[in-house]
Amino acid sequence: MSDVKKVVLAYSGGLDTSVILKWLQDTYGCEVVTFTADLGQGEELDPARDKALKFGIKPENIYIDDVREEFVRDFVFPMFRANTVYEGEYLLGTSIARPLIAKRLVEIAQETGADAISHGATGKGNDQVRFELGAYALMPGVKVIAPWREWDLLSREKLLAYAEANDIPVDMKHKNGGAPYSMDANLLHISFEGRHLEDPKAEAEESMWRWTVSPEAAPDTPEFIDLEFEQGDVVAVNGVRLKAHEVLAKLNELGGKHGIGRLDLVENRYVGMKSRGCYETPGGTILLKAHRGIESITLDREVAHLKDDLMPRYASLIYNGYWWSPERRALQVLIDHTQQRVNGWVRLKLYKGGVSVVARDSKDTLFDQTIATFDDDGGAYNQADAGGFIKLNALRMRIAGRKGR
Amino acid sequence: MSDVKKVVLAYSGGLDTSVILKWLQDTYGCEVVTFTADLGQGEELDPARDKALKFGIKPENIYIDDVREEFVRDFVFPMFRANTVYEGEYLLGTSIARPLIAKRLVEIAQETGADAISHGATGKGNDQVRFELGAYALMPGVKVIAPWREWDLLSREKLLAYAEANDIPVDMKHKNGGAPYSMDANLLHISFEGRHLEDPKAEAEESMWRWTVSPEAAPDTPEFIDLEFEQGDVVAVNGVRLKAHEVLAKLNELGGKHGIGRLDLVENRYVGMKSRGCYETPGGTILLKAHRGIESITLDREVAHLKDDLMPRYASLIYNGYWWSPERRALQVLIDHTQQRVNGWVRLKLYKGGVSVVARDSKDTLFDQTIATFDDDGGAYNQADAGGFIKLNALRMRIAGRKGR
Amino acid sequence: MSDVKKVVLAYSGGLDTSVILKWLQDTYGCEVVTFTADLGQGEELDPARDKALKFGIKPENIYIDDVREEFVRDFVFPMFRANTVYEGEYLLGTSIARPLIAKRLVEIAQETGADAISHGATGKGNDQVRFELGAYALMPGVKVIAPWREWDLLSREKLLAYAEANDIPVDMKHKNGGAPYSMDANLLHISFEGRHLEDPKAEAEESMWRWTVSPEAAPDTPEFIDLEFEQGDVVAVNGVRLKAHEVLAKLNELGGKHGIGRLDLVENRYVGMKSRGCYETPGGTILLKAHRGIESITLDREVAHLKDDLMPRYASLIYNGYWWSPERRALQVLIDHTQQRVNGWVRLKLYKGGVSVVARDSKDTLFDQTIATFDDDGGAYNQADAGGFIKLNALRMRIAGRKGR
Amino acid sequence: MSDVKKVVLAYSGGLDTSVILKWLQDTYGCEVVTFTADLGQGEELDPARDKALKFGIKPENIYIDDVREEFVRDFVFPMFRANTVYEGEYLLGTSIARPLIAKRLVEIAQETGADAISHGATGKGNDQVRFELGAYALMPGVKVIAPWREWDLLSREKLLAYAEANDIPVDMKHKNGGAPYSMDANLLHISFEGRHLEDPKAEAEESMWRWTVSPEAAPDTPEFIDLEFEQGDVVAVNGVRLKAHEVLAKLNELGGKHGIGRLDLVENRYVGMKSRGCYETPGGTILLKAHRGIESITLDREVAHLKDDLMPRYASLIYNGYWWSPERRALQVLIDHTQQRVNGWVRLKLYKGGVSVVARDSKDTLFDQTIATFDDDGGAYNQADAGGFIKLNALRMRIAGRKGR
Repeated sequence: MSDVKKVVLAYSGGLDTSVILKWLQDTYGCEVVTFTADLGQGEELDPARDKALKFGIKPENIYIDDVREEFVRDFVFPMFRANTVYEGEYLLGTSIARPLIAKRLVEIAQETGADAISHGATGKGNDQVRFELGAYALMPGVKVIAPWREWDLLSREKLLAYAEANDIPVDMKHKNGGAPYSMDANLLHISFEGRHLEDPKAEAEESMWRWTVSPEAAPDTPEFIDLEFEQGDVVAVNGVRLKAHEVLAKLNELGGKHGIGRLDLVENRYVGMKSRGCYETPGGTILLKAHRGIESITLDREVAHLKDDLMPRYASLIYNGYWWSPERRALQVLIDHTQQRVNGWVRLKLYKGGVSVVARDSKDTLFDQTIATFDDDGGAYNQADAGGFIKLNALRMRIAGRKGR
Repeated sequence: MSDVKKVVLAYSGGLDTSVILKWLQDTYGCEVVTFTADLGQGEELDPARDKALKFGIKPENIYIDDVREEFVRDFVFPMFRANTVYEGEYLLGTSIARPLIAKRLVEIAQETGADAISHGATGKGNDQVRFELGAYALMPGVKVIAPWREWDLLSREKLLAYAEANDIPVDMKHKNGGAPYSMDANLLHISFEGRHLEDPKAEAEESMWRWTVSPEAAPDTPEFIDLEFEQGDVVAVNGVRLKAHEVLAKLNELGGKHGIGRLDLVENRYVGMKSRGCYETPGGTILLKAHRGIESITLDREVAHLKDDLMPRYASLIYNGYWWSPERRALQVLIDHTQQRVNGWVRLKLYKGGVSVVARDSKDTLFDQTIATFDDDGGAYNQADAGGFIKLNALRMRIAGRKGR
Repeated sequence: MSDVKKVVLAYSGGLDTSVILKWLQDTYGCEVVTFTADLGQGEELDPARDKALKFGIKPENIYIDDVREEFVRDFVFPMFRANTVYEGEYLLGTSIARPLIAKRLVEIAQETGADAISHGATGKGNDQVRFELGAYALMPGVKVIAPWREWDLLSREKLLAYAEANDIPVDMKHKNGGAPYSMDANLLHISFEGRHLEDPKAEAEESMWRWTVSPEAAPDTPEFIDLEFEQGDVVAVNGVRLKAHEVLAKLNELGGKHGIGRLDLVENRYVGMKSRGCYETPGGTILLKAHRGIESITLDREVAHLKDDLMPRYASLIYNGYWWSPERRALQVLIDHTQQRVNGWVRLKLYKGGVSVVARDSKDTLFDQTIATFDDDGGAYNQADAGGFIKLNALRMRIAGRKGR
Repeated sequence: MSDVKKVVLAYSGGLDTSVILKWLQDTYGCEVVTFTADLGQGEELDPARDKALKFGIKPENIYIDDVREEFVRDFVFPMFRANTVYEGEYLLGTSIARPLIAKRLVEIAQETGADAISHGATGKGNDQVRFELGAYALMPGVKVIAPWREWDLLSREKLLAYAEANDIPVDMKHKNGGAPYSMDANLLHISFEGRHLEDPKAEAEESMWRWTVSPEAAPDTPEFIDLEFEQGDVVAVNGVRLKAHEVLAKLNELGGKHGIGRLDLVENRYVGMKSRGCYETPGGTILLKAHRGIESITLDREVAHLKDDLMPRYASLIYNGYWWSPERRALQVLIDHTQQRVNGWVRLKLYKGGVSVVARDSKDTLFDQTIATFDDDGGAYNQADAGGFIKLNALRMRIAGRKGR
């Protein structure tokens, strides 16, 4: 264990990663560099700096970065170009932030000459995989320290005892007592696991939710919003041009106000177990709906179906931590290629937890009213063509039928 | 055109198929058998009989069948076992009824010795394909008469003139004037096309919707319901065991009351054009959500992902009219095989247009709380295993990285 | 039929297209532009010019183009980057030439102000689809004249009578009597259909084959050749750098000499029937084997598997005539992206109809001898990692097993 | 390490597993049950019994089973129904035997009350995964002892020293000196790894191959054979009805004689590295070709394409050790369903390393000569239908083209 010289720790400033910071110093006797990212999780980051200093981290070893724009522009938006949903439901809010953190850990390791990285993800979850696959892909010789897989602080009690013994403040308690939820937040979502969610038949308590009002508490009047797309990404909300991260923040505000984007599900983790999670993804839920809406008029049918066929695989790659893999990159090249004409405008209705597309238009539309019309189309479409189309599509079945198959 | 002796017509009793009935008699000079199906569309079928008689159809040539149970049991439920959605949104309410009608047309043709079938679908749409592919697959030598592809009544005006000239009652007018929507209904959904929906940027008018109240008009209090599954199908609602078609009727009632299942989209037709449609699928929307919920705890991860990967293809097969194809049947064998343990119970919340799963349980659950827990698991899961798991999954990327790739 | 002013005909100079040329002049009374492509089919093209002149085609309306380099560089090689095989066997020699011809027909139509194109493919085959889908995609308003679907010369006898009546030389007879094979040739292959091949249980006659000696007649000594790849394409044979079409010509020569690349199969046409075809693809057969060989050491596993998963779909797109579709282009973007490091060298053994890879190397190899070795690897790979890897991959099955599933 | 009471060892009688047997006794102090399978590897099994007795294994703890029929009937044939090939080349000869061994190990463990199994596969390979995933799936609580991942005998020298010290005969030496190839054999194939194969640019030495003569040494006259299929499996060779394992033995004999089925490739292991392997699969190579041949006339096009699309995934599942997984079983249900009419007869030519289909026939053929013919078909196919077929398939591209896309 003594061969680590300098380690970059993904440091939130919370209890767990503070214990890890101390434990790394004690166990490995190595220099620690802390990295704290502003992913739009909505927490003050200054306390993280103060705590790090208190642990004796050198100021030049404390990295606190605002990566919100990079996060949405280079990770969230590319993912939404594929209408990505894991297991039919989950919008991958946690999964998509991990590769950015892995990338920054590696960059900082290379800047500071560190030979290792460390994180606070447990040995049961997906996040360890996402951090580490990313780190190994980007810096193949890096050492990874995953304290939860190494130490003996495996119960919450032991962790608290260690914190107390080392003068680490314990400020995270659940208001109703017991352990708090295991939570993760960034501009795309906030997630909840643990506590009584561990029983899939137990309903989530209303007090758990943080970003969205309950649909019941949402306004009684629907709100209509207009989103403008360029090459598959939203560039303006209600006519106001915004940066990528501002778009998502704005959609979160709108979605949160209308109770949109709550999700309660049991998902299949990459490490092999099922787990219950609750998610609030207000902006992402709106974005997915809107993106499908704009694609519906601007994307060729077979291209859209190709994307639909590949989506579950792409979603699994992200969920499982393979963002930096060559196969995810290859898929991204295809996905991005398809978005060149995904331009235009979508109107959505937000109401009491629901979001629906009510109108859409585009200069690049492939919708052709002269053909689709129920009225006389002036010969734009020859109905007789359909006879031959059906006959030949049926031919193999007619031959089989004639042969008694 | 003289070589048709007897034709079985899919007859709704409405204007279009009444005109077709008359036109078939006049043009082909052949005996006509009418088939009218009760698919739960919510219309009286007796008038169809009276009209048929008025056109001189012999009583023994008038078939009016209640196929509601067959429809839901053998078509709708098998389709929902796959969590089937076309293009991310559409629940295939029209598509799934067509193969049943095709099958009955063929059966009646065989019973009555008819050599042809006929239907009222236009040459621009998907339904002609669905009817005819089904018919050709089940009766390869059948003749198909698709009047919309043959006659010269291609505008609404000509059709109305023909009706008037032949004393056919014209009772379908839109209350706001102009042509009515093109509608289709059965136990799974009601659909709307045409009129100003032909412009994708025009919003649907509230008065169009028929089966659901608007979310705004729905009750201010959520309703919680319990669905019981056996082998992937719902067998009981709120503890009351029901037949398949009763289940769907009950869910339609519940969903309609809460404004659930409205959809407004642009879809890609099999014949090559984009078209705008609005759909109300109250029960189906609840069913899809619930089925995903019960699968989430009873289905193996990789089986679930296999199903997700195949679903878009399966959905396209149904949308495009290939229900009776050997490839749809092969997929169905796989899908049905996976549902053997999809048993259990799901609780859903219905509120203002939204439906969400709040709890689920099963005697066949694969959720293992002792492993998933954040608490001490007593060794059920060895966190150190994850290190090797990640290392080997990363190996190919580490090798590539070391080689500067 | 009178509304065509000028038509560009894909003209081989053979009997069928000569009859078509005349028939177009007579039936449509329009100006005809002939396009004859040198795709490496190994026939003199000058006679085509003479014949065209004899039919009164203006010299400026006679296009005879050497498109061999374009054909191999822009069509054949891109296709082989995907290891493309249709239905497990067929290397798509005819399919891949059609989109190039379609493109040139359209380009010439645009240059000469023609409003229509025409070709000699029958209404039963795939080629009509390939020509016409390509033309419609590239020139959506083009008129297509497919004489075989229009005229009444549907039997060989009628065609010959028409030829005789119009003084068109009939030089294609089969030496053993009866109709000749229906053949197609280009640098990638020569194909045979018709005659007694129409019975799948009848063996092909040895005299049919043209490009390859029989394996029995091939040299008794194997020949070893070296192919050099850059970005997935062969750029040198036995150390000699060659242009794309020269590569294929050289491989054809080598393969033909050793009896490589004969294929006898029953395939499924896009129009719905099964058909028997025999093919000689000497160079392509070598190329496919070599390309898999170089990819085996330079491509990441998951990228290779992604390509394998998509290949049958990509092959069907080409077979069915969708080269110019947006979905084929999207797939090509992905495929080409994966070939950036597919560089290196493959040695193959050619012998008596067989081709096999015996060695391969690359500066971009991902093969890592220090890890793969059965000898002591000095810690490059920690075998204990495999324990965790297996345990977690097994976890979902162990949980299921414990629950009696 | 002391908590194992009885372990079932997959015992070949060779050096490695003999060392393991002794090591298990010494290290775990537990009772050892040996399982030796006759998979048709062509080795005497009696010596294994003698050796086991010499190590003090009780007679009732020595299992020597002839599983050849089960192997071919329940594993090899089902796999070939899918035309299974891994990475375009490898016929999975080793992969498909492992799940059978895993199943027998578990069955014997259950019969003898053993709590553990053990095997001689290294920590770098695929076989450990295949053994263990199978065992965990079938007996979730089983303990697995993988000595290569535990002990310190990691070099060949240490292993030999241990053998010598424990009086274990060392009879496997390579005739040219150095370590022998790592080999595996069963009725489907024999494989070679290691030695100078570890360098992908080094050619395999002729003396390595064991089951096949070199193509050069094969008979100068081709041999034609007839295979009869029922439901996708070969049931007769040259008119002689045979059991499954007899079929494969016969095909091995025929293929071996004609130099068929040698393969030299670099493959991607599940544990993340590339490795070079050489394989002889004479019978399997014939079988694959023949099965594609019979399917070509008896399988519907879209069913065949569905199978082709799923095949790489199915192949990876088997390669990676997931035979006993629920997803492989689900795919098998689909595959087997498709084989109901895969009946008939295929004639093949065997010559100098090559195998080709020259004729095929079936009472269940879907080939329809009256439609496919180039001659007048008497109206069986209406060529005009193709015009509409193409027009509608082109429609989306024409619309796009008209809009400048």
